[in-house]
Amino acid sequence: MSEVRQKAALAKNAAAALNLLTTEQKNEALLRLADALISRQEEIIAANERDLSRGKENGTSSSLLDRLKLTPERIEGIAQGVREVVELPDPVGDVLETFDRPNGLHVVQKRVPLGVIGMIYEARPNVTVDAAALCLKTGNAVVLRGGSAALESNRAIVGIMRETLASSAMPPDALQLIEDPNRSSVDEMLKLNGLLDVVIPRGGASLIRNVVENATVPVIETGAGICHTYVDDTAQPAMAEAIAINAKVQRPSVCNSMETLLVHESFAKRHLAELAERFRERDVELRGDAASRELIPWAKAATDEDYATEYNDYILNVRVVKDLDEALDHIRRFGTMHSECIVTETAGHADRFLQEVDAAAVYHNASTRFTDGFEFGFGAEIGISTQKLHARGPMGLPALTSTKFIVTGSGQVRG
Amino acid sequence: MSEVRQKAALAKNAAAALNLLTTEQKNEALLRLADALISRQEEIIAANERDLSRGKENGTSSSLLDRLKLTPERIEGIAQGVREVVELPDPVGDVLETFDRPNGLHVVQKRVPLGVIGMIYEARPNVTVDAAALCLKTGNAVVLRGGSAALESNRAIVGIMRETLASSAMPPDALQLIEDPNRSSVDEMLKLNGLLDVVIPRGGASLIRNVVENATVPVIETGAGICHTYVDDTAQPAMAEAIAINAKVQRPSVCNSMETLLVHESFAKRHLAELAERFRERDVELRGDAASRELIPWAKAATDEDYATEYNDYILNVRVVKDLDEALDHIRRFGTMHSECIVTETAGHADRFLQEVDAAAVYHNASTRFTDGFEFGFGAEIGISTQKLHARGPMGLPALTSTKFIVTGSGQVRG
Repeated sequence: MSEVRQKAALAKNAAAALNLLTTEQKNEALLRLADALISRQEEIIAANERDLSRGKENGTSSSLLDRLKLTPERIEGIAQGVREVVELPDPVGDVLETFDRPNGLHVVQKRVPLGVIGMIYEARPNVTVDAAALCLKTGNAVVLRGGSAALESNRAIVGIMRETLASSAMPPDALQLIEDPNRSSVDEMLKLNGLLDVVIPRGGASLIRNVVENATVPVIETGAGICHTYVDDTAQPAMAEAIAINAKVQRPSVCNSMETLLVHESFAKRHLAELAERFRERDVELRGDAASRELIPWAKAATDEDYATEYNDYILNVRVVKDLDEALDHIRRFGTMHSECIVTETAGHADRFLQEVDAAAVYHNASTRFTDGFEFGFGAEIGISTQKLHARGPMGLPALTSTKFIVTGSGQVRG
Repeated sequence: MSEVRQKAALAKNAAAALNLLTTEQKNEALLRLADALISRQEEIIAANERDLSRGKENGTSSSLLDRLKLTPERIEGIAQGVREVVELPDPVGDVLETFDRPNGLHVVQKRVPLGVIGMIYEARPNVTVDAAALCLKTGNAVVLRGGSAALESNRAIVGIMRETLASSAMPPDALQLIEDPNRSSVDEMLKLNGLLDVVIPRGGASLIRNVVENATVPVIETGAGICHTYVDDTAQPAMAEAIAINAKVQRPSVCNSMETLLVHESFAKRHLAELAERFRERDVELRGDAASRELIPWAKAATDEDYATEYNDYILNVRVVKDLDEALDHIRRFGTMHSECIVTETAGHADRFLQEVDAAAVYHNASTRFTDGFEFGFGAEIGISTQKLHARGPMGLPALTSTKFIVTGSGQVRG
């Protein structure tokens, strides 16, 4: 039996046991995990150094190496994240509906764990702990398949967590790490219907595309975001500037940052040249349509391919539109239904935008950067769903649960 | 452009318009559809007769022909179903959560339509109307791909519905029928990411397997059910018999009927021979393990393959188990997480069964046949989801919706 199948089967058995634990038992185990990550941090850092030196030999970029690097401070932060998950309410067991039927049947719809979750992700080893804590808190077993660049770190972290669970009420087999670095181990996970209940990919566009295109197991798609900010005729110039700058440069590498700025032609005439300067000061490359380039002569020409690209970088498309409808058309054509913003003082335009734009999160007069589980106050985030099924937008703990109808009778049969 | 892609693109445009309609506008259009199906029933019946005579020529079984057949009474029933959908509350626009953040952002999570739903289904033309009514009520456009056996009927029905919508607020393009009878049109729908938001298969196991294995569009899996009834040591014999007989023979062809009866050994010694007679009287073929066959000498031997088969027929597996744990093990191994029942007077056993069995619906002392949207009082049913994501068990109108976070601010940016 392959490593993937064997570990998924162990996880499935463990999931049945997890389903019987109380919130207190789960929280107690999670607190032990947090403590163990701190007390055994030297092992983790030693393993992480092996990943880092291998990465250096392989010519990994310094920014990627920085994301991979674990320090005592970062481990403290990771452990603190686990403690915060402990503080969150446990959604499992919540009653969503309860009703009695005329024939006397009593029906209760309760939240239950999903079962076994497959996580497929890239470099940062903190995801290993975050995902484990969120899954275990919600009574799910988890099969982790991290990137090969972090394999030593992940092995050390999961090894410590499994050893720690052995002295808790939680079965260590609830945590499984796939160590096979070949792409075939990912492909196998994607087809494990019957053992995995869901697969959640976290990472770059090509990782997510591979999962969505090849999985037969249900998927929660996360991450890709081509987000727009539309600055309407009546926008307050200072507010428009603050929101647009924030949406682009506060953290360009993430999915909720802006890729295209749409500007009403009348606002553009009055303010676009100056706004462009604010981007230039921040080293943002601008790519514009013909109308914007008349106002920003130094901007490059934007193509349809540019409008369809998630740069995750200091690059921004700019397009002048003649009205709200043209902005809505552009978003319909190029948006990825993640986060979209209108800056306007015209209430009717805001209402139309919020109603008509089909996205996980729509904003009036606020930066798209707020689409985030922590910013929404969920206390934790598994990812940001960009699909419409099951969960949409920032996912908190309830997104890691399913439901079950519990029906009690006294001999009822169907007539 | 292919028929599928062209019609899906039209549906996507229509979905944007549908999203702006009020509940009253949607209901008014649905009532017109119901009236038109009645007033133009002769056209439908004439088309249906062409399907029936083609079916006869092709040697279609009489039971399938009966399911395909439309009569004035059946059309009246179908139209009545549409009127009942009108009476149901519209979930679109429901506010699920509303919260204010410390930075002043106001967040509202609202139900929104899914967008464009692809329905892939088999013979019965009533599904065409049911699916259309449920999708339109929830503001979704729908691309219908029915079985080729019902093509003439479906073409007549969808033609009448589209013509009727033309004089309502609802865009006729919200309803699309794929007429290409080749399997390739199904395959194309399964990969239409960006045009279809979800695909829902309804039909036999092979249709559903094809969809689950090949779709890159998110799927709501429905239908397959290997359901068990476990009769415990302390079950009341008369209740056990009534529930077991009902679960098997009241309608064997459906997914919530029983395929395997598990019997505690002590109950078996006292009552299984007699219970088997009750099944024999109803022409149910029994397939048993060694222990059951000692008590039912006329039963055939059951294999593991039998335990893993959804018969949808007058065939039942019987297995004697030594206790609740052995019953739970069997269900874990062979169940499809649809509907599972325990008949017992031992409260602790009922509690364990209801908690530990991982299924969409779990029953204590009632027939599994109740897993049904109408029986649960939902007033309509899109299908019974057998997956854990998005919706599980009988799906009512909310299962055809997604959500959207609407965030209003006054210039907030992220720090």
